[in-house]
Amino acid sequence: MTLPQVAKWDIFEASFEGPAEGNPYVDVTLEATFSSGSRQVKVPGFYDDEGVYRVRFMPDTEGAWTFATSSNARDLDGKSGGFACVPPRPGRRGPVRVRNRFHFAYEDGAPFFPFGTTCYAWTHQPADMQAQTLQTLAKTRFNKVRMGVFPKDYIYNSNEPLHRAFVVGDDGKEDFDRPNPAMFRHFERQVGALGELGIEADIIIFHPYDRWGYCDMGAERDFRYVRYLAARLAAYSNVWWSLGNEYDFLLDCKPIAQWDRYFHILEECDPYRHLKSIHNGEASMNFDHRKPWVDHVCIQNWDVKRTAEWRAEWGKPIVNDEPEYEGNIPRPWGNISPRELVHRFWITVMRGGYAGHGETYMHPEDLLWWSKGGELRGESWKRIGFLRDLLEQDVKNGLTPIPVEERWEFARVSGAVDGDVRFLYFGEHQPLQWAVGLPMEDGDYEIDLIDTWEMTITPLAKKPLPVSPALRQRGGAIRGGKPEAAFGIHLPGKPYQAVRVRRRG
Amino acid sequence: MTLPQVAKWDIFEASFEGPAEGNPYVDVTLEATFSSGSRQVKVPGFYDDEGVYRVRFMPDTEGAWTFATSSNARDLDGKSGGFACVPPRPGRRGPVRVRNRFHFAYEDGAPFFPFGTTCYAWTHQPADMQAQTLQTLAKTRFNKVRMGVFPKDYIYNSNEPLHRAFVVGDDGKEDFDRPNPAMFRHFERQVGALGELGIEADIIIFHPYDRWGYCDMGAERDFRYVRYLAARLAAYSNVWWSLGNEYDFLLDCKPIAQWDRYFHILEECDPYRHLKSIHNGEASMNFDHRKPWVDHVCIQNWDVKRTAEWRAEWGKPIVNDEPEYEGNIPRPWGNISPRELVHRFWITVMRGGYAGHGETYMHPEDLLWWSKGGELRGESWKRIGFLRDLLEQDVKNGLTPIPVEERWEFARVSGAVDGDVRFLYFGEHQPLQWAVGLPMEDGDYEIDLIDTWEMTITPLAKKPLPVSPALRQRGGAIRGGKPEAAFGIHLPGKPYQAVRVRRRG
Repeated sequence: MTLPQVAKWDIFEASFEGPAEGNPYVDVTLEATFSSGSRQVKVPGFYDDEGVYRVRFMPDTEGAWTFATSSNARDLDGKSGGFACVPPRPGRRGPVRVRNRFHFAYEDGAPFFPFGTTCYAWTHQPADMQAQTLQTLAKTRFNKVRMGVFPKDYIYNSNEPLHRAFVVGDDGKEDFDRPNPAMFRHFERQVGALGELGIEADIIIFHPYDRWGYCDMGAERDFRYVRYLAARLAAYSNVWWSLGNEYDFLLDCKPIAQWDRYFHILEECDPYRHLKSIHNGEASMNFDHRKPWVDHVCIQNWDVKRTAEWRAEWGKPIVNDEPEYEGNIPRPWGNISPRELVHRFWITVMRGGYAGHGETYMHPEDLLWWSKGGELRGESWKRIGFLRDLLEQDVKNGLTPIPVEERWEFARVSGAVDGDVRFLYFGEHQPLQWAVGLPMEDGDYEIDLIDTWEMTITPLAKKPLPVSPALRQRGGAIRGGKPEAAFGIHLPGKPYQAVRVRRRG
Repeated sequence: MTLPQVAKWDIFEASFEGPAEGNPYVDVTLEATFSSGSRQVKVPGFYDDEGVYRVRFMPDTEGAWTFATSSNARDLDGKSGGFACVPPRPGRRGPVRVRNRFHFAYEDGAPFFPFGTTCYAWTHQPADMQAQTLQTLAKTRFNKVRMGVFPKDYIYNSNEPLHRAFVVGDDGKEDFDRPNPAMFRHFERQVGALGELGIEADIIIFHPYDRWGYCDMGAERDFRYVRYLAARLAAYSNVWWSLGNEYDFLLDCKPIAQWDRYFHILEECDPYRHLKSIHNGEASMNFDHRKPWVDHVCIQNWDVKRTAEWRAEWGKPIVNDEPEYEGNIPRPWGNISPRELVHRFWITVMRGGYAGHGETYMHPEDLLWWSKGGELRGESWKRIGFLRDLLEQDVKNGLTPIPVEERWEFARVSGAVDGDVRFLYFGEHQPLQWAVGLPMEDGDYEIDLIDTWEMTITPLAKKPLPVSPALRQRGGAIRGGKPEAAFGIHLPGKPYQAVRVRRRG
């Protein structure tokens, strides 16, 4: 018999007929152990309605795999099978991991620089709008989308969702003990569609924007829901787990220990160890991101010049998923100018972090990208893509900010280094000449001026500028001073410029 | 005999012949007690070279004044005289005082909103350039100038000063025990010239930009110099004492206790209690501004959204005298765009503080306003004057920021209230509609849109906007919310806009 073939990092799925009576979601246990050689990986299975049970598995190693199930239901227990894991499809790189402490990489080793956007409830909009969202994403350079599992009830998003999250009973009430397979099947299809576009799905498990009662299901149901999510979705290579959006607005019904338990359930049920994070509302209410089950720091904070402080505080990658959004709604988090959002992206990235995009322009039919997806109407997304391209072109390990402790100037302007490439970003600063942070050693350097808004790259002659104390000395510049760089450069004297320096040969 | 007449807040001066041998600066003591009715005010006198001693006094009360001197020199002891203090000249308002804890007013009660600029070494430049500086200042709206007593040696300012601060002896060395009367006479003439323009002189007593040794004269000489300054200058009504510029760069030779002593000497020798402050270099090296001899907080800090935090920390007026300067030199503190400096002024003022201007455009002959005065070449100074005009038009007691604790939006946008006037400043934010921070009560309001860069004021129709949750609710906007304002307004949806609301009738 020929074994089925599954590409590495794709999904193997087995389905079984089993009991349909009672409430299988609650009553029936199912798990499978996948084996390759002496290695064993346990995964949870799940009930997918109408007497059908499924087990999903994402192989990370080529070769022969077998599995065997165990269940408290006789029909599901002791089932077995196998498949051959073949090389990955072109462009498939596996799940994203933390690498180099503050950065990310795909499992195949390629660096991953998150340039995400936010469409919280896009999978709950009408089907044609969802298709439009995917078309829009395909033309952007975003490689991550923040999206909620549950429907959303919030300003500019009060329309009925495409599906409810749980089955509506004959009494018209949603039964929180019975997930609605239609919604979850649809959700995972869209997670898969993002994967085909090379986009990570940053899946928000709980959020406070709720009129259906999903916030208040109680701890046991929450735990069961998280296990169900892991069983259905963990085999998708592009999954990230975002435990809460503005989790602190849910502390009245979900205390900290309960959030910890969600993390632990994912540790137990997701054998692929997809990235786990949790996102704050109030800046003062950050989760303790130092806990070992938090893989990276996901925050919202407009004060992006503090990015290097956050790195120091938590020692993990910083993803600032709401440095405020481009738009014009009457909320300060949703009405900064496109230029300002591009500026905040550059500052964040040049201080060793990553930022997230969102777009909140008022619309006569309340079609705001940040909530519903659809079309982008703003100006920042292209410039953000341009920044991603620059990173992918030259950065290998991730950018390390030039330490303020060494060069005080970099509290004010921004600059970062990775191996033989470095970037300086001047933002609101507009020097005509510059030297600090440039290489200290003589050598052969290729220097480009980058206009972050116009998206132009212009070769910049490296010129040994007249050695003025202003250019070549550091510190308070009182009583002496040391040369700061091997050379200086001329700049155009206007804001929002950056410089890229690459060592040649 | 007819008494001489001196206008209130002008200067009465008496001079006496006395000993010229030895070193009168060190050897001879002189003070005078001025009396009006039962009130007595002691002032120090000073030696003004060539055997001439002077006593200066600024009367603050109309009527008859007499004085008597005491001295360790027989020729100077027991001298007496008097004058009649008559009403002040038009436009003379007396020294500036702290009022309403975070604000300032002239002694006559008129509010004073500091909108200062910086020309550190303008009195040490060639005479024609000094005349040009005064002409330039006359056409601006700046009402305070930061200026050093001592010459300055720093980037873009290495030319020889007009005068040395101390007498150069036959050995070619400066004698720190003998002030150079030519320099001090010139300096005080320029302080007076500023006063005639209605401009406060924020006099920097010590600074670290030095090649002559003024930093390292030793404690005793420093103390004598501070007393001498007080004796010469305190009678000028427009004097502010800034004990140090970037005082922390001088801590190696002047420990904190020595700075305290300078303050105490001014308390002893300046009977008019001119404002005293001290200015930091490193943001982390702020003086303890809570000390009772510090009248207001003078800092340099680019991070102006923290202004309300600084108010809370020190409980005194905040004057941010270097929120970075407009310019293009290769130092981050001196190369922000004009738009950014105007933006920082608005943020600072709308958070209950005051900011200082400086201009640092590179120039082929190193003529930078911030150091030498001369001509203004930038774009921010007019807009700063426009902001001052707006304040003077409506603000009586000083602006109180809308507390972040009450309305979280005001950590991000800026807004402030004084009685029946309020301003909101949106900066990088560009809402199309707004309500938060507008009056809570129905009433008759006059509302204007202010373009802070174009300097236009456009009446804005107050419109009861459609009551959308986005506009009228506050907080995380989850599960309910309260009306935030009695009405909402329409805005143009572009950055750098402000709104003024005035209650009518």
